[in-house]
Amino acid sequence: MESLQALKQRLTEIDDLRRATAVLSWDQTTYMPPAGGTARGRQMATLSRLAHETFIDAETGRLLDLVARETESLPYDSDEASLVRVTRRRYDRDRRIPASLVSEIEENAALSYQAWTTARPANDFERMRPYLERTLDLSRRAADCSPGYDHIMDPLIDTHDHGMKASDVRQLFHALRARLEPLVQAIASRPQLDDSPLRKTIPLETQLRFGLEVIRAFGFDFTRGRQDMTRHPFMTRFAHGDVRITTRSRDNDVTDSLFSTLHECGHALYEMGFDPSFEGTPLAGGSSSGVHESQSRLWENLVGRSRGFWEHFLPRMQAIFGRDLDTVSVDAFYRAINRVERSLIRTDADEATYNLHVMLRFDLELDLLEGKLAVRDLAKAWRERFQASMGVAVPDDANGVLQDVHWYHGLIGGQFQGYTLGNILSAQFFATAVQARREIPDDIRRGSFGGLHDWLKENIYRHGSKFTPAELTKRVTGNDLSIEPYMAYLEGKYRPLYGLS
Amino acid sequence: MESLQALKQRLTEIDDLRRATAVLSWDQTTYMPPAGGTARGRQMATLSRLAHETFIDAETGRLLDLVARETESLPYDSDEASLVRVTRRRYDRDRRIPASLVSEIEENAALSYQAWTTARPANDFERMRPYLERTLDLSRRAADCSPGYDHIMDPLIDTHDHGMKASDVRQLFHALRARLEPLVQAIASRPQLDDSPLRKTIPLETQLRFGLEVIRAFGFDFTRGRQDMTRHPFMTRFAHGDVRITTRSRDNDVTDSLFSTLHECGHALYEMGFDPSFEGTPLAGGSSSGVHESQSRLWENLVGRSRGFWEHFLPRMQAIFGRDLDTVSVDAFYRAINRVERSLIRTDADEATYNLHVMLRFDLELDLLEGKLAVRDLAKAWRERFQASMGVAVPDDANGVLQDVHWYHGLIGGQFQGYTLGNILSAQFFATAVQARREIPDDIRRGSFGGLHDWLKENIYRHGSKFTPAELTKRVTGNDLSIEPYMAYLEGKYRPLYGLS
Repeated sequence: MESLQALKQRLTEIDDLRRATAVLSWDQTTYMPPAGGTARGRQMATLSRLAHETFIDAETGRLLDLVARETESLPYDSDEASLVRVTRRRYDRDRRIPASLVSEIEENAALSYQAWTTARPANDFERMRPYLERTLDLSRRAADCSPGYDHIMDPLIDTHDHGMKASDVRQLFHALRARLEPLVQAIASRPQLDDSPLRKTIPLETQLRFGLEVIRAFGFDFTRGRQDMTRHPFMTRFAHGDVRITTRSRDNDVTDSLFSTLHECGHALYEMGFDPSFEGTPLAGGSSSGVHESQSRLWENLVGRSRGFWEHFLPRMQAIFGRDLDTVSVDAFYRAINRVERSLIRTDADEATYNLHVMLRFDLELDLLEGKLAVRDLAKAWRERFQASMGVAVPDDANGVLQDVHWYHGLIGGQFQGYTLGNILSAQFFATAVQARREIPDDIRRGSFGGLHDWLKENIYRHGSKFTPAELTKRVTGNDLSIEPYMAYLEGKYRPLYGLS
Repeated sequence: MESLQALKQRLTEIDDLRRATAVLSWDQTTYMPPAGGTARGRQMATLSRLAHETFIDAETGRLLDLVARETESLPYDSDEASLVRVTRRRYDRDRRIPASLVSEIEENAALSYQAWTTARPANDFERMRPYLERTLDLSRRAADCSPGYDHIMDPLIDTHDHGMKASDVRQLFHALRARLEPLVQAIASRPQLDDSPLRKTIPLETQLRFGLEVIRAFGFDFTRGRQDMTRHPFMTRFAHGDVRITTRSRDNDVTDSLFSTLHECGHALYEMGFDPSFEGTPLAGGSSSGVHESQSRLWENLVGRSRGFWEHFLPRMQAIFGRDLDTVSVDAFYRAINRVERSLIRTDADEATYNLHVMLRFDLELDLLEGKLAVRDLAKAWRERFQASMGVAVPDDANGVLQDVHWYHGLIGGQFQGYTLGNILSAQFFATAVQARREIPDDIRRGSFGGLHDWLKENIYRHGSKFTPAELTKRVTGNDLSIEPYMAYLEGKYRPLYGLS
């Protein structure tokens, strides 16, 4: 097992560079002063390039071959066989990508992000255009490193949601849209729910304090993580013992910071939960974007927007937030946080309309990558399609094409489909958990989350990225990915809320 | 000049790794959750090792040779000749240090720091003993990489204060002590100054706000830097456009956070002030620890503890801190902040006794490195020598041997002498500045620091590390390092304050 040790040591050194890059990126998006951006982009590019060069070096392949031979008799789901399998898959993929391209992508992402932080508040899409054109070019070049695809987005999707192609996503989205749109239309025909209980201004520190209390109850370990403020919330891992989440807050919305905190906590619980022996290897981290998102959405929505959750936490929130919330009932509050409305911002969207936002972005990405849509026409296309699909006029680019950080801090293509895959999987996993542990809904009503957290650790988290999303879904639920549990969840929640038969 | 470009590119890549290490270290000492320490140590060790390996590679030497030949006709103080000279000096030094030792030192420093953060509050020197023993061993091994020294501390001093040896420092300290001790004794014979005006509790945020207002007036550029909280304040640079300072605060001392802020601001102004074209090369940064410290002490003490400064800033402080400070006069406040007292903590020490703290540490370092003193006897030796030299009993190790972060976050030897060199140089540089620009004292009384800051930029900051401390001192002041301006400053300040003839 000497070669296994040598392989792990090599992978850990590569991971050290990647985690360091994550620290630099976290700092850029939380604390870095504006003039630090240029150097930061260069520094991150250097670290990423070095990590990539070391990983794709023939020595990694040699060690992989050695370990593969030594471990070939071990079962498929053993740690050793899984390490070889997952590392080999990434090695084969990454070897096709030149280090210079990795470096260009990283530097462009950092500089583009830096520009976005001021261009979005200034509603200045034109300023982002050159960055975005370069990003589109880099995205195409990244995809072209894996020739032989059916669709140019396939390699980009595969990086985040291994095993899926653009055609699979299209088909899935088509089926989901056919079920979602009638529900959203039926809801729109009913009297709107009142969300005025949320429209209070609570001091930021008070909001944060409550959010931290909730995620502590969820199982977030503060000796192994912390929360900071940012523009576009995210979770990042620097080590098994150091998982960071970020949040934002907005005036006049008592739950804005909270739901972003619960969302990122879901990601963090996943990253805090893998087998510690995976640290430093590709087995650390989640199975895919979709599975990762299933955990953020599970804790944010299936737990955090449930009536049972608020039976326990509304009194706590009232005790902490004080007078402004004193008079609201659990029912009124539950209705307020579940109001369905075609709105402008994806991250604010309710559970019923959320996926329509994702589909819009996915379709735009397809058109951009296929060359059907030019970046210079993107803002206009956004406004037109948003109006057509949501029936809402986009007042400005800040609330339109500039709203999400993704295209301005990475590549175009590969990221958005994960959100909807996550929504679908969140319901499928949660239904399985409740079937296995019938007490979970009552636990939630009592503010007790240990049973749910343990089940998720045992069935999902501890495996890290040992299994592909398809394998994991089958292992955990006994079925392939299906929209049925998700639609059952949505129908079961929103029909009573809106008095639909 | 192609080889110059190639050299700069190589040096910048190395610098990217070093700056990334600085970000990781900053995060460790400001925000990192406790369980992140082990991985962080490993990550920093990996980055340091890679930076070191790349720097000492023969390719660096080859490029240096090429550039040296191409630039040999350029003047000594040209940027190009200086780049070759300074890089060559570090290259020759660093080549003698194996990469594995660099990695060991970095990892030990991170783990030791992590232990110190809890061992100091717990007053638990025994817990630090194994770390410190390893640190002493690593310090000796680091020194032994440069054989042929007169004293084992020489190579360690040379790293921080190039051109000085242990014997030089000893001699200088001997001369200084002979002048300082009579002054401190004379002061002790006089009635003590009243520092009760400082003993108020002001909310942390209010203290920080005032400190930031002052350093903004000094010239700290907040688009290129920021301040965060830590245990043991420091300054660090991530880029020419990103210089971080840290501070701490204590109840019942209205100036504790302020003076630490002014101190670190002095370091930051130096780092913000080098020629931007030096970015990424060894010319970025300061000339030496001593020269660096001269700037922190100049802004903290010669400016910040002067009567003129408080003529302007006491009314501002009173406006911000409110009622508690309303009634104090400038004279009373000036006396309070300049009270001389043999006290326990170096960083709290007044200007007259401060160097006695440094000398104590320097002597202990000599004994540790020479093998005359074992780590297991260090806490006891500290208590005995402190009592003997200061006449103050050390109540516990938290306020004794555990107080400074240095031995617990790096090597033993090389760091402390810089503080006293800095005190000496701060007065020598400031006297020269005032001679050149007679209006500086009046400017300070008006809260205007642009003239002083410009003079320092022009004469010291912009040169980065082009010149050795001895060269720079000579260029700036026309003289070698001398304790006379410093003693004249101390005598001129404290004799009137304490009514000494």
